[in-house]
Amino acid sequence: MFTRNRVAAAPVALSRAILARSRGRVSGVVVNSGNANACTGPAGLADARKMAALARDACSGPALVASTGVIGRQLPMDRVEHGIAAAGAALSPDGFARFAEAIMTTDKRPKFAARDVKLGRRSARLVGATKGAGMIAPNMATTLTFVVTDAAVSPRALRSLVTAAVEPTFNAIAVDGDTSTNDTLEVLAGGTGPASPRELRALGAALTDLLDELAHLLIGDGEGVHHVVTIDVRGARTAREAQAVARRVAISPLVKTAIAGGDPNWGRILCAVGNAGIELKPDRIALAIGGVPVVRKGTAVAGWDPGTVGAVMKAPAYAMTIDLGLGRATARHLACDLSHDYVTINADYTT
Amino acid sequence: MFTRNRVAAAPVALSRAILARSRGRVSGVVVNSGNANACTGPAGLADARKMAALARDACSGPALVASTGVIGRQLPMDRVEHGIAAAGAALSPDGFARFAEAIMTTDKRPKFAARDVKLGRRSARLVGATKGAGMIAPNMATTLTFVVTDAAVSPRALRSLVTAAVEPTFNAIAVDGDTSTNDTLEVLAGGTGPASPRELRALGAALTDLLDELAHLLIGDGEGVHHVVTIDVRGARTAREAQAVARRVAISPLVKTAIAGGDPNWGRILCAVGNAGIELKPDRIALAIGGVPVVRKGTAVAGWDPGTVGAVMKAPAYAMTIDLGLGRATARHLACDLSHDYVTINADYTT
Repeated sequence: MFTRNRVAAAPVALSRAILARSRGRVSGVVVNSGNANACTGPAGLADARKMAALARDACSGPALVASTGVIGRQLPMDRVEHGIAAAGAALSPDGFARFAEAIMTTDKRPKFAARDVKLGRRSARLVGATKGAGMIAPNMATTLTFVVTDAAVSPRALRSLVTAAVEPTFNAIAVDGDTSTNDTLEVLAGGTGPASPRELRALGAALTDLLDELAHLLIGDGEGVHHVVTIDVRGARTAREAQAVARRVAISPLVKTAIAGGDPNWGRILCAVGNAGIELKPDRIALAIGGVPVVRKGTAVAGWDPGTVGAVMKAPAYAMTIDLGLGRATARHLACDLSHDYVTINADYTT
Repeated sequence: MFTRNRVAAAPVALSRAILARSRGRVSGVVVNSGNANACTGPAGLADARKMAALARDACSGPALVASTGVIGRQLPMDRVEHGIAAAGAALSPDGFARFAEAIMTTDKRPKFAARDVKLGRRSARLVGATKGAGMIAPNMATTLTFVVTDAAVSPRALRSLVTAAVEPTFNAIAVDGDTSTNDTLEVLAGGTGPASPRELRALGAALTDLLDELAHLLIGDGEGVHHVVTIDVRGARTAREAQAVARRVAISPLVKTAIAGGDPNWGRILCAVGNAGIELKPDRIALAIGGVPVVRKGTAVAGWDPGTVGAVMKAPAYAMTIDLGLGRATARHLACDLSHDYVTINADYTT
């Protein structure tokens, strides 16, 4: 899965081409952090090709390329070439934690997770690493996420599992609503032999569960994030409408600053719901924050206590539940605060 | 013109109904600030009706109602009733500056402007007042804008002039991309007699010019705004695509924090262009900041000087010109910075 940004970075364009040429069969991935190799013109594409060629040699087969960091600067190819040679020489079965650390930019900590899954009589393992930490729905911070597994699954079946697993996880988080030029989520499976439908379902469930943990780690380490808020939308006519509402609330700057301040300003939440672009009956909307009912029938619950709700909003993680009262569809999105730290990190990133 | 937010405040719903009933013929407007009367249920609608009835008495004809301030609290109707009585008693031909002051919320200063226009042998005057200052594309800060003129123009012709005048002015500014529950822009014309097509064109031009000044005043007084940046998009296939790009750049949190920091991080601007949802040829994009060429053919101009561009970005107002290289359509949007002050103002508005 690659960014939907139309100004895609050179490594994204190249990796798409490599996957098409190899029909999804690749042997490795090479990643650099600190420079996104985006908006770098023909020279940037040539650099990405050089990286792919060096990595291909290092892992004896086609390799994908991913880059993250500042946009618009040419890669320092002498250092990159040296780095790929060193990484190739250090390939090891227990190097995943170092990989997770190597791909960090403004991340405060490496983020990785693992799952074991029974597939018939065999068992398989999935390990994944992700990095953020702004521009999540992500610029400079890009999300790059990599999962490897020893499960046996065809490229085509795997693609369908990944597509389904990404929707409720990485496509349901937002730090700032900007989508990077470099976002990449890659799953590599190394097993052989066919997988049964039942095994595929088990593998898909484990993958979704793993991506859910990585998505939580990612947003929890978002730039300037002090609160991770689960936006649960219920009572929508369709899942698509529920998602539109959850996403609009999650990216509203006014909701996000209220989260930062622990301010139970429920009116802003309803205002954001009204901006989702779907038909509503405002007098049916209900809202609870941290399980405390705040709004019913579109207005404040009589006697609700801002102090109680404000206390809930001091927690590092809590939920907002929005019931539209229109149907039975639901959606979930992860949101976070827009804090002074976010402004500080992003106000002078390149200088 | 009223908000497109589907959770529209009681005064918005009521004013729409009054306009429909009166066929656009009203005698006045009553406005309160400090309380938006939004998400206030049936009691809120009853309060708005009471305001309209009192104002109708005060100005001897149908009156519209507008409110701005915090969402979700019942109006203190004793104070409102007293206020309408006092305002009605103080109606005066030279009260417009006091009106502009009375409608302020987080605004730092009253904002008003005037234009004189020759209509055939007569001349007419337009005076307008606006308030912001966040939630512009706007929550709590709402834009309320009112223009009065002694020109003669039918409600139908006036509606068409206003619709056209709003597009390049109030529909082309964004402080934070949130649209308020209360946004309202009303133009009241008090003249009599028919207007010729030529007079209508002159009146429309004067109205657009007046709204342009008010829009600039509004964004310049936006919450935490230190820089007003004109986003000029050229070379688009269609005006709609040009607008999509200009708006996406204007609301991108990463562009806005770069503006706040005076950071010439042009990659974020191209990244935002890529998120506009239109087909692009990235290798044709050109960008100038304050007239200084920064990007050509999708990548940095050789030898561009970040110091020079950083100095441009210290100015309170400057332009970013984006050429997509695809066609001849253009669009303009006003953007501003996302600063620490914005977070401070919005993190604990209700507490």
